[in-house]
Amino acid sequence: MSSHHIVKEKQEPALIIANGASCSEELLGQLLEWSPFIVVLDQAIYRVLELGIKIDVWMGDFDNSHDFDDIRQKQHPLEIVHTPDPDYTDLEKAIQFLIDRGFPAANIVWSTGRRADHAITNMTNLVRYKDRIRLVMFDDYSKIFPLSGTFEKWYTAGTPVSLIPVGTVEGIVTTGLKYNLHHEALIMGYRSGNSNEAATDGMVKISAEKGDMLIMECWDL
Amino acid sequence: MSSHHIVKEKQEPALIIANGASCSEELLGQLLEWSPFIVVLDQAIYRVLELGIKIDVWMGDFDNSHDFDDIRQKQHPLEIVHTPDPDYTDLEKAIQFLIDRGFPAANIVWSTGRRADHAITNMTNLVRYKDRIRLVMFDDYSKIFPLSGTFEKWYTAGTPVSLIPVGTVEGIVTTGLKYNLHHEALIMGYRSGNSNEAATDGMVKISAEKGDMLIMECWDL
Repeated sequence: MSSHHIVKEKQEPALIIANGASCSEELLGQLLEWSPFIVVLDQAIYRVLELGIKIDVWMGDFDNSHDFDDIRQKQHPLEIVHTPDPDYTDLEKAIQFLIDRGFPAANIVWSTGRRADHAITNMTNLVRYKDRIRLVMFDDYSKIFPLSGTFEKWYTAGTPVSLIPVGTVEGIVTTGLKYNLHHEALIMGYRSGNSNEAATDGMVKISAEKGDMLIMECWDL
Repeated sequence: MSSHHIVKEKQEPALIIANGASCSEELLGQLLEWSPFIVVLDQAIYRVLELGIKIDVWMGDFDNSHDFDDIRQKQHPLEIVHTPDPDYTDLEKAIQFLIDRGFPAANIVWSTGRRADHAITNMTNLVRYKDRIRLVMFDDYSKIFPLSGTFEKWYTAGTPVSLIPVGTVEGIVTTGLKYNLHHEALIMGYRSGNSNEAATDGMVKISAEKGDMLIMECWDL
């Protein structure tokens, strides 16, 4: 499913499989298909082995004990990266690892759900990397990515597009949304752009002068 | 399970059942036992009816059509509150409703999971009400509440206690945690207090000079 030898141009996004709630096999299958390079975090390795997915890198602080030889053999060739630094989450270390390896983009899955502290930290930390790597986080209900520069995308009318400020975001300008913002501010906890949507079949444009924002395309099942 | 006639002192927290992912029946049962007054949001009414729970108030914008007479009959006496204002989420309207009715505290359940935009907005909006009503949000992995004044609680050693800044929080002082903060700042997206824990069996104390913070007690299942 992946090979180091054909990953030369690194134009396709890498895939990080984190250790939160699993997503549908359909979503995971789609993400795997696009990804030439797959990084799995810590305990998630066992769920990945069960699914029979071939991966490239296994990262973690490895606080729990593992049969490394057994896992290495099942995934050969496998790069095992021990990351004991407690100042960063496993997901942060994986993103930094992919930046260091020169990947321009990565998709992230299994990083939401379960513990709220991990989920909210994983989502909001995306903004930290917005100028260094294109990150998109997926789960069964959501596609999450940080605003970097001006965002432009064609949507069909009514597609939910939520603007989630991470802290305070100023000078937001949008076009194409049902509730457009005209040089306005959003403040997390006080004024959110949750549950906006594309006004018509057409382009949506979002920019901000200052601050960090997540854009979320979400849907109910 | 609840009666308006015995809710005189309003010392017990009300319970808001929102429209996100359901929690375990065990958790819901515990919350129902403590709650003399139960508010259900919009579409969640059908899951609540299935569980045979007697509620007090049903609120929503009621965008979908409902057989109000049938539901009123099944839940008699039931107060139905139509809240069409699109500027506030159903959860915000329910919290405001309980403040207006004089409740000093409310628990919130079924407000996380599923769509990430709703979940993150529901969690972070708690800070807006921190001086008006004591709010605690629960799911199967998490107990979430805003810091208001100085927080003090006895924990057993190793209990996870995450400090999640909603924006920038300054002048944070903690004692009793594994990684204590000494007049330090946390900044959402950049420096989080995720995955801290009680250092010993004893009191944990958390305060901040400026800004809004969520405290999260989370656990893995």
